[in-house]
This record gives sequence, C-alpha cells and structure tokens, in this order.
Amino acid sequence: MQKKVCFIGAGNLATHLARELHKVSFDVIQVFSRSKESAQTLANRIGANYTTSVEHITKEADLYFIALKDSIIHEVLEKIDFRNKLIVHCSGSLSLSVIESYSENIGVFYPLQTFSKKREVRYKEIPVFIEANNVDNERFLVQVADTISDKVSVLDSDRRKKLHVSAVLGCNFVNHFYTLAADYLKAHDISFEHMHPLIQETASKAQEMHPFEAQTGPAVRFDRNIIEDHLNQLKDFPELKELYNSISRSIFERHQKS
Amino acid sequence: MQKKVCFIGAGNLATHLARELHKVSFDVIQVFSRSKESAQTLANRIGANYTTSVEHITKEADLYFIALKDSIIHEVLEKIDFRNKLIVHCSGSLSLSVIESYSENIGVFYPLQTFSKKREVRYKEIPVFIEANNVDNERFLVQVADTISDKVSVLDSDRRKKLHVSAVLGCNFVNHFYTLAADYLKAHDISFEHMHPLIQETASKAQEMHPFEAQTGPAVRFDRNIIEDHLNQLKDFPELKELYNSISRSIFERHQKS
Repeated sequence: MQKKVCFIGAGNLATHLARELHKVSFDVIQVFSRSKESAQTLANRIGANYTTSVEHITKEADLYFIALKDSIIHEVLEKIDFRNKLIVHCSGSLSLSVIESYSENIGVFYPLQTFSKKREVRYKEIPVFIEANNVDNERFLVQVADTISDKVSVLDSDRRKKLHVSAVLGCNFVNHFYTLAADYLKAHDISFEHMHPLIQETASKAQEMHPFEAQTGPAVRFDRNIIEDHLNQLKDFPELKELYNSISRSIFERHQKS
Repeated sequence: MQKKVCFIGAGNLATHLARELHKVSFDVIQVFSRSKESAQTLANRIGANYTTSVEHITKEADLYFIALKDSIIHEVLEKIDFRNKLIVHCSGSLSLSVIESYSENIGVFYPLQTFSKKREVRYKEIPVFIEANNVDNERFLVQVADTISDKVSVLDSDRRKKLHVSAVLGCNFVNHFYTLAADYLKAHDISFEHMHPLIQETASKAQEMHPFEAQTGPAVRFDRNIIEDHLNQLKDFPELKELYNSISRSIFERHQKS
C-alpha cells in the first residue's frame, strides 16, 4: 500500500505510529509540529520532510494523521486546506464529528496504549479502534490498521470515549499510584525496586482473572486495625492520606455489593 | 536443612509459602486453620497433617509460621504454648514485638507479593524481608528465606510498615482501578480484554523508568476539556466521578511541584 502519509503532530503517539507505518512501508512524506525539535527528530528517523509552519503542510498526502493535543486541534486545522483528502484524528476522547468541517473524508484511528518516546512497544498487540464517515473510508482505515496491529476493531465515538475513560483509570491513575508509592518509599529511604515484582504480578493477575477476584489487602477484608495504622503512617502526607481513605472505602463498598 | 515447620494459617500467603518451603525440602509437619477446607487442601498438597483445633497444634516443630489475619493473631496465639521455639509472623503491617509474649525466639518473614491460591508465582523473584529478636534467629531466618528467594533483606518493623503502605498503593489500589475500569466497560458492553496490553505496558514502564517520568494522560497535561468531558461521562457513576476528580487533581499537583 504505497500511500502518502502526513503527520500533523510529533508527540509520543505520533512518533510511535509514524515509525510503525514507515516500517511497514507507508511513505510518510512530512511531519508537522510547532516544536522544531519534535518535528525534526521524528522526520529524520523515518526519512520524511518536516515543517513547523502550518502554511507549508503538504497538499500531496493521501492520508493525514492528526495527533495533536485535543485543545489545539481547531486552531491548527482551520488554517489548512485538506482538499477533502482523508484526515483522521487519533484521540480517544474526541468525537469523529470534531473534524467534520475540515474535509469530506474523515476518520478516527485510536491506538489504546500509553506511549513514551523512549520506549519501544509491540504494536501488533495494541488494540486499534477505527471509525469513519463512510464505509469506504472505514474499510481503508481498517486495512491500514491491519498492517500494524492484530487487534483492529470498529468502534463508534460514544463507546470510544468510554474506553478512554477506562484507560485513564487503568493506566494514568494506576501509574500515579506507582509515583505516590515511589515518593513515599523515597521519603523513608527504601528502594522502589522492591515493588517491581509486586507491580508485575498485580498487572499479570488482572489479565488472567477478573480483577475483582484478584483483590487482596486490608480494605477488601476491612481490616480496621491495619487501615487505621496505615492512616497513621501517612500523617505527614495529608493528601495521600485522604486518597487512602476514600479508595479504601471504595474497595470495601465495591466488595460488599457483590 | 531438615527443619520441621508448622503453619498456623492456611490462607493465600500460607499456601504459597508452605508449598515453596516443601519444594525445597523443608518438612512441613502440620497445618492449622480454623477452616477445615483450607487446612486440609494445603496439608494434602504438601503431605502434612492438619488440625482445626488450637489445642492440637504440634509441639514438635522447630519453626512456626503465623500467617493469620492480623486481627485474630492474639486470639489464636494466646492458646498455644510454643515452648520458646522460633515463631515468625508474615505480616507487613505488624511490629515484631506483637508476638514477643508468646516465645523468647521471634521473627518476621514478610514476602512482598500479592498471593491468590489459584496462581503460581515465581518465588525466587519475590523480595522477602526478615526481622528477628536476636542475631542467631535473624541469621537462621535469612538462611531459610535464601532457599526460596533471591531477594532477601533484613528490614526493621518501622520500615516494613512503610513498605506495606506502599504495597497497598501499588497493588491493592491499582487493582481496584482495574476493577472499576472493568465495571465501567461492562456497563457499556465493551470487553475488558481491550485493556490488557495497556495494563501490561503501564506496569512494564514503571519498572524501567521512574513512574513520574512515565505519567501520561489528560491530568498531567491538565487538559481541562477532556477532564470535564470524562466527568460528564461518569455522571451515572457518582462515586467513581468523585475519585476521578480527586486523583486528577493529585496527578496535576504532583507534576506541578516538580
């Protein structure tokens, strides 16, 4: 599929996706980012041109990936004439219709993963969710996605948003608790590395049994002595103490209900 | 090391630890639990006797593992005459001194992991934290721990409690967010399996870079539009909505500070 692709945005998601499409021999002809460093780094890596000026975005691509921070999408897109080429955004949280005024051919290409520029990911295993404004565009985007992922689905905007909310819970919030644990251990001069096998096993369990079944710890048993002691251990960390309290209550209530 | 071992308690932790000690050829002679099913299942598995009555706990063991719910430890132990044999508890949250009235030889043997009876774990990778009331007992317990784990440390009660608090954050709370995500997806008829690669990558990242560096998502960028939209997506889940709000604030504040 020798399609010409342009990336508008060069952040974490764009970097991984552009490199992956390049690998399976899409012709990524240009990368746009307002950050010269980001645009150049990605473009060099995949042999593309780059620009930092909206006016110089190519008219020659068959497919434009819009991988911008949701809040600046309009500000950038309203300056571009896409000549009704296929444009897709990569956001879990935006409806397809958000880009409908910019082209007659629109879609969504949403890979459900957390991307950091420094880390490699196995793209084949990443679920990719497709949506488009007509059957032809949908079929085409599914084909594109199939070249890089084994887990391609079509999903409408409403349900994609639900998935995005749950990704925040299962990834961003989870990672924040790792950070809070690391902070807390550091304050007591204990290595966060001790936590690695526990972190791994917690994630592995949730993929092999329902996480509800996997729940352990003082809150699910409502072991009041331990909970009180832990709150006491957190007395110098008032914000964390408050979170500890509300999440313990949430755990207990969830397990009482069933 | 042909030492005779008795397990007081047959829950998740006891089950895994007893089986592991049995594997490296400790002689587990008896399992006590007030639940006949638990005692019998574990005892049968490792060729031990079992009892459900405190009075019949053996006097013949060299080492007693106390793996009971913290809240019932005293109620059980006060009925047993250990004849000053070495007794160790396996709790992250209890001080060593909690068992000092029951023997002159006491210790703590705390494996930092989440155990479910159904799942195998690689014990060699599990950090085990040892504490004892004298150097001989400490040395002996380190030797015992070394037979099953490659990650044995000596750690005092105060710092073990800190570790236990952080295990609650990095395991129990994390798993609860998996449960909340699964509940939320189920309510919208979306498979939780879509989340598996994201869950795995989130855990992998936190073991290879500092979780602070790994943080992604709307809260760290303070993307107010997405956060507002997500709160709206959660309007039928008021408790989850409240947690979403307070954790997003916590993420944002933590990343502002640095």
